[in-house]
Amino acid sequence: MNAYMKQQLSQYQEINNDKARLLVSCPDQPGIVAAVSSFLFENGANIIESSQYTTDPEGGRFFLRIEFEAEGIRKKIEQMKATFATVAESFQMTWSMNLASELKRVAIFVSKELHCLHELLWEWQSGNLMAEIAAVISNHEDARETVESLNIPFLYMKANKDIREEVEKQQLKWLEEYRADVIVLARYMQILTPDFVSAHPNKIINIHHSFLPAFIGANPYKRAYERGVKLIGATSHYVTNELDEGPIIEQDIERVDHRDNVEALKNIGRTIERSVLARAVKWHLEDRIIVHGNKTIVFN
Amino acid sequence: MNAYMKQQLSQYQEINNDKARLLVSCPDQPGIVAAVSSFLFENGANIIESSQYTTDPEGGRFFLRIEFEAEGIRKKIEQMKATFATVAESFQMTWSMNLASELKRVAIFVSKELHCLHELLWEWQSGNLMAEIAAVISNHEDARETVESLNIPFLYMKANKDIREEVEKQQLKWLEEYRADVIVLARYMQILTPDFVSAHPNKIINIHHSFLPAFIGANPYKRAYERGVKLIGATSHYVTNELDEGPIIEQDIERVDHRDNVEALKNIGRTIERSVLARAVKWHLEDRIIVHGNKTIVFN
Amino acid sequence: MNAYMKQQLSQYQEINNDKARLLVSCPDQPGIVAAVSSFLFENGANIIESSQYTTDPEGGRFFLRIEFEAEGIRKKIEQMKATFATVAESFQMTWSMNLASELKRVAIFVSKELHCLHELLWEWQSGNLMAEIAAVISNHEDARETVESLNIPFLYMKANKDIREEVEKQQLKWLEEYRADVIVLARYMQILTPDFVSAHPNKIINIHHSFLPAFIGANPYKRAYERGVKLIGATSHYVTNELDEGPIIEQDIERVDHRDNVEALKNIGRTIERSVLARAVKWHLEDRIIVHGNKTIVFN
Amino acid sequence: MNAYMKQQLSQYQEINNDKARLLVSCPDQPGIVAAVSSFLFENGANIIESSQYTTDPEGGRFFLRIEFEAEGIRKKIEQMKATFATVAESFQMTWSMNLASELKRVAIFVSKELHCLHELLWEWQSGNLMAEIAAVISNHEDARETVESLNIPFLYMKANKDIREEVEKQQLKWLEEYRADVIVLARYMQILTPDFVSAHPNKIINIHHSFLPAFIGANPYKRAYERGVKLIGATSHYVTNELDEGPIIEQDIERVDHRDNVEALKNIGRTIERSVLARAVKWHLEDRIIVHGNKTIVFN
Repeated sequence: MNAYMKQQLSQYQEINNDKARLLVSCPDQPGIVAAVSSFLFENGANIIESSQYTTDPEGGRFFLRIEFEAEGIRKKIEQMKATFATVAESFQMTWSMNLASELKRVAIFVSKELHCLHELLWEWQSGNLMAEIAAVISNHEDARETVESLNIPFLYMKANKDIREEVEKQQLKWLEEYRADVIVLARYMQILTPDFVSAHPNKIINIHHSFLPAFIGANPYKRAYERGVKLIGATSHYVTNELDEGPIIEQDIERVDHRDNVEALKNIGRTIERSVLARAVKWHLEDRIIVHGNKTIVFN
Repeated sequence: MNAYMKQQLSQYQEINNDKARLLVSCPDQPGIVAAVSSFLFENGANIIESSQYTTDPEGGRFFLRIEFEAEGIRKKIEQMKATFATVAESFQMTWSMNLASELKRVAIFVSKELHCLHELLWEWQSGNLMAEIAAVISNHEDARETVESLNIPFLYMKANKDIREEVEKQQLKWLEEYRADVIVLARYMQILTPDFVSAHPNKIINIHHSFLPAFIGANPYKRAYERGVKLIGATSHYVTNELDEGPIIEQDIERVDHRDNVEALKNIGRTIERSVLARAVKWHLEDRIIVHGNKTIVFN
Repeated sequence: MNAYMKQQLSQYQEINNDKARLLVSCPDQPGIVAAVSSFLFENGANIIESSQYTTDPEGGRFFLRIEFEAEGIRKKIEQMKATFATVAESFQMTWSMNLASELKRVAIFVSKELHCLHELLWEWQSGNLMAEIAAVISNHEDARETVESLNIPFLYMKANKDIREEVEKQQLKWLEEYRADVIVLARYMQILTPDFVSAHPNKIINIHHSFLPAFIGANPYKRAYERGVKLIGATSHYVTNELDEGPIIEQDIERVDHRDNVEALKNIGRTIERSVLARAVKWHLEDRIIVHGNKTIVFN
Repeated sequence: MNAYMKQQLSQYQEINNDKARLLVSCPDQPGIVAAVSSFLFENGANIIESSQYTTDPEGGRFFLRIEFEAEGIRKKIEQMKATFATVAESFQMTWSMNLASELKRVAIFVSKELHCLHELLWEWQSGNLMAEIAAVISNHEDARETVESLNIPFLYMKANKDIREEVEKQQLKWLEEYRADVIVLARYMQILTPDFVSAHPNKIINIHHSFLPAFIGANPYKRAYERGVKLIGATSHYVTNELDEGPIIEQDIERVDHRDNVEALKNIGRTIERSVLARAVKWHLEDRIIVHGNKTIVFN
């Protein structure tokens, strides 16, 4: 961790020392906001940012994200959670309350293409991605030097489909050992088993190198080239057991033209992948995403 | 008004019959959201959409927009306003509460360039711009045919700087006669007097054909061409008595290159102007804008 | 045709009176540009704009578009073509040479959704789409008033799949009678028969309301909503007998979020469809597109 | 230089071994393209890419960029240049002919903000920026570690306006010693003297953190915040002795809103600065830019 980042981090901790985030999802009915905001007021909390969404005005589902500030929240959050449980129950809420100052621990999986890893590390060092990088896990040695120079554990194990179970067993051990809260597949080119995926619902963020649902699966840039599209894109989504079908978090595109061959598309695409994945991870870290069915609500 | 628009309108009225919008601005302090949402809950209102913003977590100013639904709101809004006044007073609020079903009346000022007028009328006919077009006021006859074919009053009076006072006197009479709530300068090429502007604070929306603050004043496309910019833009803002210095509502740009001469820039620019102005007017009509000092908070 | 448009047109004719465009496609080999440019020089022509592209430096295919100016070209183009045929033959060229001043005749097919038609007519009236609108052909009466008010023939015939052959027979008669050079499907909701399509290779331009190849076929906005995409788009392409698989001319997208329901997506999408189709038609009219296999080379 | 970059470089050299680029600017007249392309044909060169532009069809200035391939060009370029001089003279051309395989040597100037330097180094390592990084010159030590880890000379000297002449004397010595062809000011926060600038016409590329001509000079993000703009941008331009008034090479913007404070604008801005500067440098390295008066023609 360099000096700049240490400064960013301590500044972040200071600014966010008294902040927490509440995420709520429940059947819509009148009085939810009144109940939640009264609860916060009574607990000495000031609402800093609040976003909400209802799927349908009539009988829909209600979603809420509130960022609030309360002096000494680090000491009293457990008690606040206990009190809030009663409010939550009366509205049948699914909810979470997280300290902004408690950084999530990220494990980054990577293979040979390192641009997404580099972007995440760069954003992290710049103080834009407030997280602890628990470890970088790879089936290739290419990233070792960069990763270890930042004092981040680099965990290498060869991988291929014949030894998938063995590999995942080791990876699960590492994830536990390094206490990872979220897994980012930063162009990790191995498919995960259903068991692995099921064990981490809405915790695995992938970057796919096309604007889904176009070009699901392998070689999207080659297929984009062959189809003659005038735009290429990238999609970040939570991983489910349907290939490239998980809830989409973020997408973006860039314009291309007939002069761009497959190599050029890959090149342009890398820039899109970098920024799309970085945004998705940032929103996850800031508790801005609620998954609803196969979609995301992103309060950004 | 064509058949499609009539259908859009009646559908809009039906959907929005029970809806209203509350805009609030006040010094930040804990308990505002709790107080407002409790008030709404007690008055049988369900919050549909809510957005807020605080300029600064410490001692800042708080802004809130709530769209809510309450059965029979059309009949009881006056009484709700009276009740809310007490809440508002205790927090030193500046506020408004408007029925979504009560359409704002728009007066459009136009000269010879008609693309912005056409866009507004097109969006209006398509049901995307829910308003009543009170009148189109012009110093040229060019728009008459189009405007009158839609059964909108077209009010013509020659204008130039020598007869400015006389012209504005007539325009003010028209605005009153046709009960205009908002004035849109859709490439109206006359300068308004300070008196006219002061009489309509945050009610006059202009489109300027550059990305302000670049190219304030006359001939922005020509100056953009001469400077050799690679982007041109348009800006919609509320009119104040400082030329092109009023609160910016919306801006957008388009890429250009060395091949584009002044005519080409104007042409590309017209497309930007059309959409930027249409978005700004739409947000105003939907009570999504709060002016704060020389800036806008747009809850879109 | 309004006064503004007449003025635009006469100005266009004056500026372009001496201009022509040469499109060439042939196997790549050294000397093509030298041969073509020498030919033009010897024929008193000055090159105004020139674009070229080779699929592959080694053994690829070469494409060229040259816009040139030659005094009195209107009188001597037939003779120039005859002379150029020799050059063309020696390089095995597929080629065309068109006068810029000879406007293409466009037939617009439309059903009930009129936003794309409106955009085309608007761009046409503004002088941005230099063409003659030969006729508007529709299976609904909705567009009649607008179209006839511009003195454009409006040709109505009910259509459905049971009477497809009969309808197309009539349409083909109309296309011949009104001498259409290009057919624009401006949200025309009927499928054309293979015979109809084959009779107009690279002459039928369609707008599809998704960023192809995502959401091929019916109801793309509904399916986009269900997939939870964060971008929606539109694609303009030449029609072939594979549904939505023809050469893509232009695509664009707009950002959406979880709050946008199907209606909102349609609404946002209409704006994209309008501009994407207008750009594609404009490029076709200006001889800027060469189709190569299932792709387009667009020299814009 | 890492292994990946070495591989990229050797691949680049192989692909580009026989390529060269011709840039031409001269008064427009018929026959230029014929003369140039005949010359190339006669010298065994095949045109790969060609772009041209005329400021005005009548009596304008003509600009041409041709990328061509000729076997053994490395050995015969001097002789080709000598022959071309005759053609050039007859058309009063200003021109250059450069080998694509001869990489330009770049000196990067940087202060404390390192994001632009990082982007350039990252693009360079990825093989997207084919150049030799001659040296990084800085008035701060912050970049030393990163730069030296890539085996690039890092040249430090304290700088401030009191010792400007002394500093520039040293810098000029370094530029000569390390044979720099182009100077990139990657957020270098010192002003250069007129003498320094005049010595490097169209050779110094700067990144300014606003969409010029808005917010010329210091603190553009702060001023953008205060003006309440809805877009912020960055501009890359050649440095002249008029502050921020040099020929613009590239610009881009990003959308912001009322929630973004100055820090947020800086943060968003950094991403724009990175990509805008990288594109401008890339185009310069590929001989894609011709400066004409105070504008650039970019053949990209």
